[in-house]
Amino acid sequence: MTHRPYLAVIQYDGANFVGWQRQPVGRSVQAEFEAVLERLVGSRVPATGAGRTDSGVHALGQGVSFVPGARWDGDASELRRALNALLPHDIWVDRVQPMQSGFNARRSATARRYRYVIGTDDGSRSPFRRPYEWSLGRPLDTAALQRAAGDVVGEHDFRGLAAAGAASDYRCRVALAEWAPRADGAGVTLTIEADRFLHHMVRFLVGAMVDIALGRRPPEDFPRLLAATDNQAASPPAPPQGLYLVTVRYPPELYAEA
Amino acid sequence: MTHRPYLAVIQYDGANFVGWQRQPVGRSVQAEFEAVLERLVGSRVPATGAGRTDSGVHALGQGVSFVPGARWDGDASELRRALNALLPHDIWVDRVQPMQSGFNARRSATARRYRYVIGTDDGSRSPFRRPYEWSLGRPLDTAALQRAAGDVVGEHDFRGLAAAGAASDYRCRVALAEWAPRADGAGVTLTIEADRFLHHMVRFLVGAMVDIALGRRPPEDFPRLLAATDNQAASPPAPPQGLYLVTVRYPPELYAEA
Repeated sequence: MTHRPYLAVIQYDGANFVGWQRQPVGRSVQAEFEAVLERLVGSRVPATGAGRTDSGVHALGQGVSFVPGARWDGDASELRRALNALLPHDIWVDRVQPMQSGFNARRSATARRYRYVIGTDDGSRSPFRRPYEWSLGRPLDTAALQRAAGDVVGEHDFRGLAAAGAASDYRCRVALAEWAPRADGAGVTLTIEADRFLHHMVRFLVGAMVDIALGRRPPEDFPRLLAATDNQAASPPAPPQGLYLVTVRYPPELYAEA
Repeated sequence: MTHRPYLAVIQYDGANFVGWQRQPVGRSVQAEFEAVLERLVGSRVPATGAGRTDSGVHALGQGVSFVPGARWDGDASELRRALNALLPHDIWVDRVQPMQSGFNARRSATARRYRYVIGTDDGSRSPFRRPYEWSLGRPLDTAALQRAAGDVVGEHDFRGLAAAGAASDYRCRVALAEWAPRADGAGVTLTIEADRFLHHMVRFLVGAMVDIALGRRPPEDFPRLLAATDNQAASPPAPPQGLYLVTVRYPPELYAEA
């Protein structure tokens, strides 16, 4: 008998993690999650995350797959309750869903959506906002941001705007890239969705867009960076605490009947 | 020559502090603030806080007074900038104002306003909300909350709803006590203002109100607790992370010409 895989959609505050992925040193979300699964099931259960969030990057809807096996005999809502009871306070399981056999949170994903939050007012340095946004504290030329975001939509080779050596294939199809004013009036937010993202790609994109929107670089630099074959001319990547993995999309047929 | 006192209005995330007040062990806001003042001025400068916030309690507008003395020759806005450059990221100076001689942030205060935030939905356990509210995750009888809040307004002896041995005089004049739905629809918020507050008083008040609003205690318990001469019958105090010191009021004539 093949055991059923589950999808857990989880949130975490990235501040006190080295990122999703288990590292030789430091606290990772994956290691915390697998430790709790092991306590619940009584044996080691590997967990796969859809996106490798960096240290400091937050998640509102990271997709995590795992196969608890025969020793777990509860249903999805019991699993959610048990996970939330044992996980540390900076990780939270929003929902758990049974999936079709063969489901894998990383390989099965068809799209990922990220959000990047910037504070442009003076209050962005407050201790209640600073861990959750880029506290820029200065106004931005939002028309310049929007133009650059428009250039990003479509299929591009992003090696000019990603960590060096991030992948063998640098092509990503960006379905959506849009800046919008924040509902609280305190800044702007980028929403970006693509089939895949390269390491540091959103942070490199935001870093370059902000340099242009502050007038530190000419607007025509942006298409040049999009066409570049390395990241030598890129702006420094935007800080991690403004970045959120918002949601991961899977084909509807991979969800099992509840 | 008498040196001019300053008022700093500061914010802090209470999570990683033992509270405002310096303690033999642990990280206090007062000790961090005084250490930065000493670096700026070159000698020890005591700082007085208007409210002794407990461990875990947040501040959006704590009043802090200090007299930097002759060795500080900048103006208030330079002082604010210098403090913010040196303070840790979980403390932030919202503004600095020169005050009249004799001003003391604690003794000169005429009123203090606190806010208590409760999350009543399931999402209140998310890592982005849990450090900043009481994650109750259940609906409350808001009419019962509002009735109890109405009972609190006026002058009372609060020894039934404060830490034992909190003061020699337990009388407080409550000018405002009002529950309102949160703007994000995720729960309710108490706003309470009084001339003074006793140790743990807001948390005891909220603890009792919530027990009544959940139907764990009968509504008539509340006037009894208000009339009690000790806290033996009180409900457990509400957790600290939902509590904010919002603002402290001073007589207008104590503000110096800028």
